[in-house]
Amino acid sequence: MANTAKYDVLGLGNAIVDVIAPVEDAFLTQQDITKASMTLIDEARATALYQAFPSASETSGGSAANTIAGIAGLGANTAYCGKVADDTLGETFSHDLRATGADFNTVPLCNGPATARCLIAVTPDAQRSMSTYLGASSLFGVDDLDENAIKNAAITYMEGYLFDRDEAKAAFIHAAEIAAAAGRKTALTLSDLFCVDRHRSSFLHLVRGHIDILFANEAELLSLYETTNFEDALANVRKDCRFAAITRSEKGSVLIDENDMVEVKAEPVERVVDTTGAGDLYAAGVLYGLSRDLPLPVCGRFGSLVAAEIISHYGARPHGDLKQLCNIPADG
Amino acid sequence: MANTAKYDVLGLGNAIVDVIAPVEDAFLTQQDITKASMTLIDEARATALYQAFPSASETSGGSAANTIAGIAGLGANTAYCGKVADDTLGETFSHDLRATGADFNTVPLCNGPATARCLIAVTPDAQRSMSTYLGASSLFGVDDLDENAIKNAAITYMEGYLFDRDEAKAAFIHAAEIAAAAGRKTALTLSDLFCVDRHRSSFLHLVRGHIDILFANEAELLSLYETTNFEDALANVRKDCRFAAITRSEKGSVLIDENDMVEVKAEPVERVVDTTGAGDLYAAGVLYGLSRDLPLPVCGRFGSLVAAEIISHYGARPHGDLKQLCNIPADG
Repeated sequence: MANTAKYDVLGLGNAIVDVIAPVEDAFLTQQDITKASMTLIDEARATALYQAFPSASETSGGSAANTIAGIAGLGANTAYCGKVADDTLGETFSHDLRATGADFNTVPLCNGPATARCLIAVTPDAQRSMSTYLGASSLFGVDDLDENAIKNAAITYMEGYLFDRDEAKAAFIHAAEIAAAAGRKTALTLSDLFCVDRHRSSFLHLVRGHIDILFANEAELLSLYETTNFEDALANVRKDCRFAAITRSEKGSVLIDENDMVEVKAEPVERVVDTTGAGDLYAAGVLYGLSRDLPLPVCGRFGSLVAAEIISHYGARPHGDLKQLCNIPADG
Repeated sequence: MANTAKYDVLGLGNAIVDVIAPVEDAFLTQQDITKASMTLIDEARATALYQAFPSASETSGGSAANTIAGIAGLGANTAYCGKVADDTLGETFSHDLRATGADFNTVPLCNGPATARCLIAVTPDAQRSMSTYLGASSLFGVDDLDENAIKNAAITYMEGYLFDRDEAKAAFIHAAEIAAAAGRKTALTLSDLFCVDRHRSSFLHLVRGHIDILFANEAELLSLYETTNFEDALANVRKDCRFAAITRSEKGSVLIDENDMVEVKAEPVERVVDTTGAGDLYAAGVLYGLSRDLPLPVCGRFGSLVAAEIISHYGARPHGDLKQLCNIPADG
């Protein structure tokens, strides 16, 4: 069958290694870090901030890469495009992603900036505040797109963070066009409230013209449509996309498609340790469900379960067996 | 006062970055890994094993370094000697140790093997099985000893793992001699059952001639004295050292000095995730107590509390505020 997709989901994003450490709130003030958001920093600031950082753990990250790792862990076929450098952190990122079963063949950058790092300060309330040095990841461009993989992916999933660099944005739009031309679907996560603020008109243009499946949290969606009314925002996104999943932290999520709207509860967590990757792994559960044509409530339930796993420990990559967690048969 | 020590505890050990991943028991069989022990591997095996390893987290490790990080977290003055290479993992190790407040000034190795890595496979029963590529750490030698620091440390604490390399063993014994000549105390952890097996006569010689404070688990102590009777082993160690602390997993620990013997309960843990570093952090709690001249039961209690913290998450470096955990005042 010509139309059978080799990949259930292909991810496109900033290839980043996370440097995660628990801190007190006073550390954020001292270091002038905006709580619960993502701030771009240059190399000098990254070096200085790391000096001030407590003892940390390094774990592969990157929003779309976290999602791909989650989808792969659930048993779907996945691939990823993103730029690392030919350095130790780049090897770590590549190893960790391939170890999930994902195909990852973007050529590493030589003689340029280092692999991207995200310094993540986790406060006792489990909020994560991110300072990202994009390094090599920001040099991802149109030439790095694996056209063949995009044509052969049922869904191409992209992170809004890519919009912070023009080259990545161009690659992003080109990827959406390739997917559309091949009769495939495109998905986008809005990534961050400040990111939506920085790129609202571009996002709106993209969502209206190129995106089938949208992920956002409540604040991001309200910001995108410049409203304070959640019902209005939902009505708007329903006009723009065929499918949307909107997360509302402990209130759970809302999933809408052309026919239905369902509310899904958040999965209770004994102790929320680190919210890094909550949205990324929620998207993984939902995209896995969509790849298997499962009903909206099941897609949402998978999202809640996988998000609950990720926030119960440090780091944005799953620790346990996600298939078991979601009660998916071994051959699922 | 000439005899006041600048450092409460100086640690001497293999400077290692841990690469930790959850695995199923079948993985240990497939990869021919001896469960719950430490196996030395060469670089080729390290590379091949890493290829087979699942998505992992990198955290600074090394037995004595973990202990020093714990003691520093409790508020004591600490220093560390150990060899990293001038590479990314070496920078990570150095950063993480210094971030705890420990002094660490061993000159990194240039143009030699890479910084040591320990591939730690954690099974669902929370047991850790370690495959260690010693790299640069094995080139730690007499020249790397900071004599001044040893002379100015109330206790010099060394890990038995150093005995796996002749150069490190020589440095170890030299350090013990410097400490003794300066009227300071020496401490040793036996590290590993197989390590005791490999070096029993050297260990006995060292314990009898050079060591004031001994740490071991029950199996290691039984092996050291080639007995199956715990009471006999305790009677033996009491003849050889002024102080010993013997851990017995969930049965707690036994602490003995010239006058007393006390049994201390293990601290209950909601869910044991990863036992990596349990012994290292137990030693941290006890050594902190000794540095403050606290009674044996309090030393043991600190050991239990800090060990419980470390086994409740992945990685052998503490996540939380250890002072708060042990109810130590901020200026303690």
